[in-house]
Amino acid sequence: MTNIGFHSVPHPFAPLSAEEIRHAAQLLRGVWPADTDIYFKSITLEEPPKAEVLPFLESEHHGSKQPHIPRKAYVAYYLRGTNKFHEAIVNISENEVEQNVRLGPNMHSWGDGEEIINIEKVALEDEKVKQEIAKLKLPEGTVVVCDPWIYGADGIGDDERMYQCFLYIRDPTNSSEADSNHYALPLAISPVVATDTMTVARIDHLPTGADATVRETQPYQLRPANEYIPESQTLRTDLKPLNVVQPEGASFRVTKQGTSNTIEWQKWHFRVGFNQREGPILYDVRYDDRSLFYRVALSDVNIPYADPRHPFHKKAAFDLGDAGAGSMANNLKLGCDCLGAIHYLGALLSDGNGDAMPMENVICIHEQDGGIGWKHINYRTSRAVVTRQRELVVQTIITVSNYEYILAYMFNQAGEFTYEVRATGILSTQPIDDHVSVPFGTVVHPGVLAGHHQHIFSLRLDPTLDGAQNRLAYEEAHPMPLSDFNPHGVGWAVQETLVERSGGYDIDPDRNRTFKIQNAAVRNPVNGKPVAYKIHAQPFQKILADKESYHFKRAEFADHNIYVTRYADGELYSGGKYTNQSRGGTGVRSWADRKDDIVDEDIVVFVQFGMTHVPRIEDFPVMPCEVLKVSFKPVNFFEKNPALDVPPSEQHFNRSVLVTEQHKQPVSQRKVGEEQASKL
Amino acid sequence: MTNIGFHSVPHPFAPLSAEEIRHAAQLLRGVWPADTDIYFKSITLEEPPKAEVLPFLESEHHGSKQPHIPRKAYVAYYLRGTNKFHEAIVNISENEVEQNVRLGPNMHSWGDGEEIINIEKVALEDEKVKQEIAKLKLPEGTVVVCDPWIYGADGIGDDERMYQCFLYIRDPTNSSEADSNHYALPLAISPVVATDTMTVARIDHLPTGADATVRETQPYQLRPANEYIPESQTLRTDLKPLNVVQPEGASFRVTKQGTSNTIEWQKWHFRVGFNQREGPILYDVRYDDRSLFYRVALSDVNIPYADPRHPFHKKAAFDLGDAGAGSMANNLKLGCDCLGAIHYLGALLSDGNGDAMPMENVICIHEQDGGIGWKHINYRTSRAVVTRQRELVVQTIITVSNYEYILAYMFNQAGEFTYEVRATGILSTQPIDDHVSVPFGTVVHPGVLAGHHQHIFSLRLDPTLDGAQNRLAYEEAHPMPLSDFNPHGVGWAVQETLVERSGGYDIDPDRNRTFKIQNAAVRNPVNGKPVAYKIHAQPFQKILADKESYHFKRAEFADHNIYVTRYADGELYSGGKYTNQSRGGTGVRSWADRKDDIVDEDIVVFVQFGMTHVPRIEDFPVMPCEVLKVSFKPVNFFEKNPALDVPPSEQHFNRSVLVTEQHKQPVSQRKVGEEQASKL
Repeated sequence: MTNIGFHSVPHPFAPLSAEEIRHAAQLLRGVWPADTDIYFKSITLEEPPKAEVLPFLESEHHGSKQPHIPRKAYVAYYLRGTNKFHEAIVNISENEVEQNVRLGPNMHSWGDGEEIINIEKVALEDEKVKQEIAKLKLPEGTVVVCDPWIYGADGIGDDERMYQCFLYIRDPTNSSEADSNHYALPLAISPVVATDTMTVARIDHLPTGADATVRETQPYQLRPANEYIPESQTLRTDLKPLNVVQPEGASFRVTKQGTSNTIEWQKWHFRVGFNQREGPILYDVRYDDRSLFYRVALSDVNIPYADPRHPFHKKAAFDLGDAGAGSMANNLKLGCDCLGAIHYLGALLSDGNGDAMPMENVICIHEQDGGIGWKHINYRTSRAVVTRQRELVVQTIITVSNYEYILAYMFNQAGEFTYEVRATGILSTQPIDDHVSVPFGTVVHPGVLAGHHQHIFSLRLDPTLDGAQNRLAYEEAHPMPLSDFNPHGVGWAVQETLVERSGGYDIDPDRNRTFKIQNAAVRNPVNGKPVAYKIHAQPFQKILADKESYHFKRAEFADHNIYVTRYADGELYSGGKYTNQSRGGTGVRSWADRKDDIVDEDIVVFVQFGMTHVPRIEDFPVMPCEVLKVSFKPVNFFEKNPALDVPPSEQHFNRSVLVTEQHKQPVSQRKVGEEQASKL
Repeated sequence: MTNIGFHSVPHPFAPLSAEEIRHAAQLLRGVWPADTDIYFKSITLEEPPKAEVLPFLESEHHGSKQPHIPRKAYVAYYLRGTNKFHEAIVNISENEVEQNVRLGPNMHSWGDGEEIINIEKVALEDEKVKQEIAKLKLPEGTVVVCDPWIYGADGIGDDERMYQCFLYIRDPTNSSEADSNHYALPLAISPVVATDTMTVARIDHLPTGADATVRETQPYQLRPANEYIPESQTLRTDLKPLNVVQPEGASFRVTKQGTSNTIEWQKWHFRVGFNQREGPILYDVRYDDRSLFYRVALSDVNIPYADPRHPFHKKAAFDLGDAGAGSMANNLKLGCDCLGAIHYLGALLSDGNGDAMPMENVICIHEQDGGIGWKHINYRTSRAVVTRQRELVVQTIITVSNYEYILAYMFNQAGEFTYEVRATGILSTQPIDDHVSVPFGTVVHPGVLAGHHQHIFSLRLDPTLDGAQNRLAYEEAHPMPLSDFNPHGVGWAVQETLVERSGGYDIDPDRNRTFKIQNAAVRNPVNGKPVAYKIHAQPFQKILADKESYHFKRAEFADHNIYVTRYADGELYSGGKYTNQSRGGTGVRSWADRKDDIVDEDIVVFVQFGMTHVPRIEDFPVMPCEVLKVSFKPVNFFEKNPALDVPPSEQHFNRSVLVTEQHKQPVSQRKVGEEQASKL
């Protein structure tokens, strides 16, 4: 094996190094004629089969000799200027291209930054598009902006790969402002670009009334701007600074080993990876030396829109499969995106030329105070014992065109793990005529409709609770029938049901149905129950699109709270590996349909959560965060409250201040403070 | 009118001053013969009729002359040594007892600290109880602890007021430790104390097997302790301090006017009251000078247990109605219960003798960082605009015997208001035999069963969105039928339904049913929709007890997510004014049954939320906080994102630190830090 880039053998979960990326590209190029122009979509770690990794991890944690696992790359690429999409597996250790296939029809790759910028240019420089824009008779100097959108699928002439572009203008009265919010000024012209020829295939006109009628392009009626940049606001002046100060530094430790990072914090131990598709991935998550998860990552998110009219009926983005949480990750800024003592991790992705593309500060790691952890006062002695709950946050923020998601893995001291999504950014908008209202969108600004839509997230968990053989069960609470045992009609009982087959399952709040991942072979020493983690997810409205629609068929995860499958290598993406213009049949619904026996097997659990977003005017021009959470909590996994050993919350540690004391500060000092605050 | 205690006329929402409390007691005593021994249960502000207060508030906010409103006290009392329960209304301004009645059968007052301590003593000093305890043959020096519980109701010989006492022991091997967790060592002996005679009426034996069989008291089998106090733990030593520093002080302002406090923060303006029953109450909540709520307070919480066996079948506490969120409020400690710049408010309650009882630091007011408020990056310019979400927290913590609730009103800069409950403290426990498991409780320690139970909270909101006439509506999202307009089956539409009559209503996640409080007379200038606030509540399992049971009849709010009524003075407590041993028929279900027309009327909305708590072993010996939230968010109330004017999040304001920089600190300094941390 060739050791590339560092002295020890990379960990099997280590993302590819720059050298490995370049080496894989070079090996792949070797199977093509020398003048072939290859457009690399991704060169990323091909994770080894789990059957190889499990013994490796076992050895790693017991200090014994670790087996050799070859390094491999997954390579997705086009022959440039064509829609010929290929995927290959390159064995970097053995200098060998192991697999290399052209993918079949309706298999298309995701968009990327380079391509999106090119599509913008193609659309805006097209002569027919320019002619349409000219009909608008826009004020001199008006800047037209193009947002390329993933084309979607309706099965009508969409076998080839395309982009649907939406056009907007920047505020014509302030046209030099590059950050003018163009989403407040949408146009009804929508060029469609073919990616093989990189030309405009046709121009769609958008319906702007209550029905599907479209009109010839009319002279543009000027509308007010609606900016989100601070220069356009009269900012509040009465907000005083709130600093998080960690005088002794952070409580976590990050250990870098080549491209791989392990994080240790408050008995938690896990490894962090990163790829183009999923962004940050957690591997080998352990608490107090007990295994919890082999792998955790966001699997995909689907955003189907409500507007049934062409071309909006195709709007149903997969933000991971169609774009990528890794490639769209923000470069996070100190003091802007987080507070306190921050550690940033960068990552390496690949670019179109098969080179390594550094992504700086795409993960931030910090602690936060999560409020009171637990408290009790013995009223007889008045002694209060109170702890605060410290949390560790591993955060990535992604920008997918108009929209932002703040994605965070969160850990606490009570053995609980939470995945949090904050949805923010700018609504996808379209033009609407005055005095029109429609039941599938909200008017958020004069002439601007924000279409109703759903956000349906799918989080993939590969549990290894005290070992790889786990089971899924759910418990429900049911009233007891009236009887001699329950004469007053107040009794109720908890019933547990074992999930025996792979499939889609749902939460039911009326029965308090709660899913638990268990290891039945390991019993709690106090009460004999199987050790378990329960899934705290909120019910949400499943995908509204008809079962026969492409929206439904493509978003294979979007119809159930829980999907559970028997583990198979490579089944990572619940909406299918290639979601762009997909037709369905390649995701978790299909895997679950195998009806595998999943009792005490190696199982994978996909947890869905989301929201039906009926935009408010308050969500524009930029949306206050909407927070969604899924939590995993131990149930009879430990022998008592695992946060019992958290030191009590005391003033000598926390150093809080009475506001009344601050009011005694000298006037001059306070004045300085106020002036500083008002300068913000 | 006599001005009492301060120079200006008290605000109609001002809690009673010490002088007013004493004066009311004195006036009340005046209607009884001089030697009458009165046991005051509460002397608190009798809030004036809303019809008088609304014009007052109108004048207050417009600077015109405010009408005179007389000061009145509500007085609840017993003739000591009897169960003769009275309520009176005392007009303090006019020196007059306006009403004074003895309440009918099955109307009993709540417990209070003085009484509970006395009940403990009565139970433990009773000779028959001592004889039972002797049968246990406890080790020399073992301390027996008594937890008086509210008696509950089953309609069997429970017309008179009683307490059901549960007995425990402190760890016999460490019997001098007054904070030993007795809940880990429950006994099967349960004395019942009559409150009129203050004697033990009978001794119940608790079933400890899987059925309802009870046994004669047997010698006690020694069990291990399970302590929550830090001295009994090996504490973590690797947690470093995290301080919230507000160098220019807090951004809120508290204005004290007699016993009344107004709080202003980030365009929010409201008045805070406090009473024995509800604890902190918000009045006249306004945002940016627009009225939102006349009054907000927790109305009650019911905790019915699952165990159908005598006497557990009666366990169904109302922690507000049976005890009181005001009288059970913790004295909060700087640097223990909150971080940052804290302002505390005290309150005055009354004691059994009709005197004022100061309650120090029962409300804490502080700001916290709520993470990112909103963010957008224009991918073309890479410019990130990001704000953080500051939150204002008005918090009270209550200890009701074994259990704690952390209750917080929270406000943010986006016009959103949240009510948060954190449930913590110690599970109510009972003895269980070895090797027994039951479906209505979890074994959390050898010999200890924690019964399954529900927590069902009822938050009362009296909305005045842009005026007193409001309406309640709900919207749902429905798939569109397949049609020429929706040929691809992807369309869906939002439908709004007006709630026309008072009643109980439910959330339905499968339809995304969302309730909104609207003012139909005030329209959003951009989209013409009625201004509204929506209710973000999570579905929960409604009360499991049978409709014919006393549990169900008494917890009148516990069967629906939403109750809406037409306003009537005095209808504050959704479980009824007197919940102790109540029989039902006096709460919100009864008021809603009037089927009042509630369209564009003065409406009151009760929002229920809660959880079915199936204890985990991790919830013992003290429970990590379980967090429940209800939020109220503007919907077309403003013209754009109300947090748009929040200054951007920038490093010069936030002063975050790179962890890597801290690692460069001199070794000696870091050593000092680590030693300090390990001393905790």
